[in-house]
Amino acid sequence: MNRLYHVPLSPFCRKVRLTLAEKKIEVELVEERYWEQSPDFLRRNPAGKVPVLRMEGRLMSESQAICEFLEEVAPTPPLMPRDIDGRYEVRRLCSWFDDKFHHEVTTKLLYERVNKKVTKEGYPDSRNVKSGAQKIKYHLDYMAWLLDQRRWLAGNDMTLADFTAASHLSCLDYTSDVDWNRHGVIKDWYAKIKSRPSFRPLLADQVPGLPPPAHYADLDF
Amino acid sequence: MNRLYHVPLSPFCRKVRLTLAEKKIEVELVEERYWEQSPDFLRRNPAGKVPVLRMEGRLMSESQAICEFLEEVAPTPPLMPRDIDGRYEVRRLCSWFDDKFHHEVTTKLLYERVNKKVTKEGYPDSRNVKSGAQKIKYHLDYMAWLLDQRRWLAGNDMTLADFTAASHLSCLDYTSDVDWNRHGVIKDWYAKIKSRPSFRPLLADQVPGLPPPAHYADLDF
Repeated sequence: MNRLYHVPLSPFCRKVRLTLAEKKIEVELVEERYWEQSPDFLRRNPAGKVPVLRMEGRLMSESQAICEFLEEVAPTPPLMPRDIDGRYEVRRLCSWFDDKFHHEVTTKLLYERVNKKVTKEGYPDSRNVKSGAQKIKYHLDYMAWLLDQRRWLAGNDMTLADFTAASHLSCLDYTSDVDWNRHGVIKDWYAKIKSRPSFRPLLADQVPGLPPPAHYADLDF
Repeated sequence: MNRLYHVPLSPFCRKVRLTLAEKKIEVELVEERYWEQSPDFLRRNPAGKVPVLRMEGRLMSESQAICEFLEEVAPTPPLMPRDIDGRYEVRRLCSWFDDKFHHEVTTKLLYERVNKKVTKEGYPDSRNVKSGAQKIKYHLDYMAWLLDQRRWLAGNDMTLADFTAASHLSCLDYTSDVDWNRHGVIKDWYAKIKSRPSFRPLLADQVPGLPPPAHYADLDF
């Protein structure tokens, strides 16, 4: 049986969970207290990060590399376009969210509010929270600008770029950090993603002591 | 004419420069004072980062996405293996260096010592420098562990993983932050990369007011 070592509110784990589910690859989920850096875990991934996917004898890490691998071994349904320019645009946007959005927003809001609590590292730094709350507006505006020109973020088809963005936003939605009323096109886009069967397990995630808001799992948010 | 907007001591720009040179794609280099975030530059890349590649009417950003694109439009010489597992390993290691190594080492040493000086942001934070100097040892040990088992970092062929690692290490070598005597296999590996024609322009890079050490451009270091 394939196995994914993960934590529920990690956008990188969610990206891999969504890709596996879209491609109908069954996997057993195992929660990993990666911050304890147990020797067993470090043997699975010397980088000390989640997700780690155990699949047919392989032990794989780095979410983008895993998703590209899954796309190559299970091309149906495709999450990457057939044309070279289209694939470039998907990869550019995956990096946008996993690097820029992650550092400017996800680490500033989610990691301050949730990860510090879970790992008992202390209280949120209000300057970081303020900065993240400011920066997410710019990112939402950029997404809306893209979605005004395209049906999905990277073009007219749903791709890994959409699942990458939705992975980050869904984690931030758990802490009510996304203003869905800022842009109608983003709300419509998220409603489409949220209603996919692959998304359902994410909406059932619960962090002990930190219940999600009522709208989090609501398809009609 | 293709044009690359870059800064000399950026590992991400170097990775693209090396890939272009390996594939014999000519490009005009334009230094970009990205930290001034001029409106012209932000039009080229809303992420406000270098490198930006202008190529046949396209404006492209995000170094990994650019390198994957170049691999697809110019497959010779190959910088990615033909097999799926091999490509996964290359992408995993590219992420290792561009994410983990970058945050634990490059930002702590190079950005403290060089970027802060260039952008007039102040003096190096000695805690960061100390942390980077500590962490690079672990990364060199990991590289040596890989190179004990393989001719190149990702397997028996030279790939984008080697150029990604060499891009980071060459920038850190400019500030004498790499202990080449720690592992003979790493020194041998770097000597092979350093002697490639694609690497020569990097060895001629100069930051005003911050000359490189004598060994930096020496093929027999």
